[in-house]
Amino acid sequence: MVIQLEANLEKLRASAPLVHNITNFVVMNFTANALLAVGASPVMAHAAEEVEDMVTIAGALVVNIGTLSPQWVDGMKLAMKKAAESGTPIILDPVGAGATPYRNRVLAELLETAPPTIIRGNGSEILALAGASIQTKGVDSTADSTGSIGAAHALSERFGSVVSVSGAVDVIVQGNRTGWVSNGVPLMTKVTGMGCSATAIAGAFAAICADPFEAAVSAAATMGVCGELAYRNAKLPGSFQIAFLDTLADISPAHLAELSKIRLE
Amino acid sequence: MVIQLEANLEKLRASAPLVHNITNFVVMNFTANALLAVGASPVMAHAAEEVEDMVTIAGALVVNIGTLSPQWVDGMKLAMKKAAESGTPIILDPVGAGATPYRNRVLAELLETAPPTIIRGNGSEILALAGASIQTKGVDSTADSTGSIGAAHALSERFGSVVSVSGAVDVIVQGNRTGWVSNGVPLMTKVTGMGCSATAIAGAFAAICADPFEAAVSAAATMGVCGELAYRNAKLPGSFQIAFLDTLADISPAHLAELSKIRLE
Amino acid sequence: MVIQLEANLEKLRASAPLVHNITNFVVMNFTANALLAVGASPVMAHAAEEVEDMVTIAGALVVNIGTLSPQWVDGMKLAMKKAAESGTPIILDPVGAGATPYRNRVLAELLETAPPTIIRGNGSEILALAGASIQTKGVDSTADSTGSIGAAHALSERFGSVVSVSGAVDVIVQGNRTGWVSNGVPLMTKVTGMGCSATAIAGAFAAICADPFEAAVSAAATMGVCGELAYRNAKLPGSFQIAFLDTLADISPAHLAELSKIRLE
Repeated sequence: MVIQLEANLEKLRASAPLVHNITNFVVMNFTANALLAVGASPVMAHAAEEVEDMVTIAGALVVNIGTLSPQWVDGMKLAMKKAAESGTPIILDPVGAGATPYRNRVLAELLETAPPTIIRGNGSEILALAGASIQTKGVDSTADSTGSIGAAHALSERFGSVVSVSGAVDVIVQGNRTGWVSNGVPLMTKVTGMGCSATAIAGAFAAICADPFEAAVSAAATMGVCGELAYRNAKLPGSFQIAFLDTLADISPAHLAELSKIRLE
Repeated sequence: MVIQLEANLEKLRASAPLVHNITNFVVMNFTANALLAVGASPVMAHAAEEVEDMVTIAGALVVNIGTLSPQWVDGMKLAMKKAAESGTPIILDPVGAGATPYRNRVLAELLETAPPTIIRGNGSEILALAGASIQTKGVDSTADSTGSIGAAHALSERFGSVVSVSGAVDVIVQGNRTGWVSNGVPLMTKVTGMGCSATAIAGAFAAICADPFEAAVSAAATMGVCGELAYRNAKLPGSFQIAFLDTLADISPAHLAELSKIRLE
Repeated sequence: MVIQLEANLEKLRASAPLVHNITNFVVMNFTANALLAVGASPVMAHAAEEVEDMVTIAGALVVNIGTLSPQWVDGMKLAMKKAAESGTPIILDPVGAGATPYRNRVLAELLETAPPTIIRGNGSEILALAGASIQTKGVDSTADSTGSIGAAHALSERFGSVVSVSGAVDVIVQGNRTGWVSNGVPLMTKVTGMGCSATAIAGAFAAICADPFEAAVSAAATMGVCGELAYRNAKLPGSFQIAFLDTLADISPAHLAELSKIRLE
């Protein structure tokens, strides 16, 4: 198994896949800019009246429950059902899983509506989503990614999803495959929407990769390497978020492949 | 016919018109910052319970359907009706027109509710809005601005609106008047909300210009020149969006008039 | 009475309190980034289905009516009631008070639901909230902070709240205590969400300070000093907002205490 990181980024930029996001209010702008920077074409649409039509023309559907409410959940379900019917990859970000019973209930409903192609969350969220009992503190992680590998495997088995757990080391699992991506910098946790952008970029890669495991690893490596490069020029969160967008747009596929630290098993 | 670009920017800054925006979630922050930077005073309010009161104290109403849903459309209609009654300029941004039947239906309803003073969109959106058959890819344009001039004229005739089509060259039409603005840089399409900000800034100019055609041309030139100046210092999308806001605030009216490339017919 | 500015910032950073925000669409991203930068942990959640559970795990509740609508107001009321029951500080930002009857009506309902621990607004908003008759121009202030001290005292008396009025000089009142914070720069009014961030940061301090008056003064001083420091490196609004976030993250408690200009009475 080899991750064609270089080829994947080139393909992403050449095909500029339309990524349909039903995401939260906090990160919409940053997510759209991150998708544009990496070379994808973002669209945000949540109304039940149009999500089925929108997802039909998209290469991937990203569902993020960060600021959920019942009407938005209706839109998410319709879009996920439609995406599943047409084989469009679904990427789920269970933001704040475990923080409230409502989030857990909605997540259970979403998982029942259609199995996600990729689930991406932090350790706390993946543990909560897997039903493990852990107190999530708001939307920030209190568990590291490696400690939640068991939960990730359980989720992957139950739903057939690739599960990508972000942390100091990102861990990506599916079936008997595991990938470790040791890129990134701690400052990424001090910019809101970094995790959500990782999810959206996983959607962009899933739109152009036949193998969602490869898409998830490629996305994690792209995020991490760009974080490291951005950190060379910006050590504080305001300028870091700007440098990160610049780097997403600027990085060459070869440079990305060279700096990525991926281990596969 | 002469566009008093210099005087218009001075007047905008001196009067700081209140621009009432009912716009999409993705661009609200950037739009508000762009309006503040250029010298206007932005307010965002969408609830049916208050839009009529808010638009009454505003100098222009900007309606942008980027992330529409039925409740927001209710607010848009009430605000547009009230604005039309009081002669407050209405600027419509048909984001993603043609992408879904719901968007098209809502746009038809909005156009029926009150004729916009100015319609600003990209080529695909203007073509879709005019009923031409074109597949819009999400919210990014697949048609150039010049190819949609016929559609712009048709819309202008039907609704009496100024129609401003953004592209490598912006084309602004109304009746037998046409303006071409050859400013701007391609990087502007890689920052989300640039088009939406162009619409909002058209609102700011419409609030202080008696002639909406002149307002639309002034807005297009201001956006384009600021884009060019920002690009001198920032070649990547993250830093470019910041440099763009800086330039909007910093540009002198004389500098703007000097660099603008406007052709009128 | 002494404000332990240095110790408060250290405590904030050490405990990273979870601040639950029900705030407006325009400023969500900037507010979340400001809270992260200063050392707090932000969460945004507005649905009636989960706000009570979310506020239960939070150290403070921030309610901001910038882009209100009935469903959001439902969530605000439930969260405020729950916060009041558990003694969690409630910080209210009456954005655009006086601009529309709907805002005034909702504000009256919120004040009746639970008395805010801290109310933070600009002069126009505080005057409007206190029932003084003033025409608010959208969401920007037309009254200075000192001119609204009477209104602030009236509000403080009626609801037992600390009232923090932002302006060239911030004035914070409660009972017979008054604080003046003479920090900040005018450019702060040209970046959207600065006031809203001041409110959110007051929430972060309130989560770790036993005395809400001290929390409000600490927040005003932190905002103002960081504004001054950011302005040293950035004189235009785009880069200023980024420099401001950087400064929030970078400022040392000692530096903050040294530069703050606080007068207490």
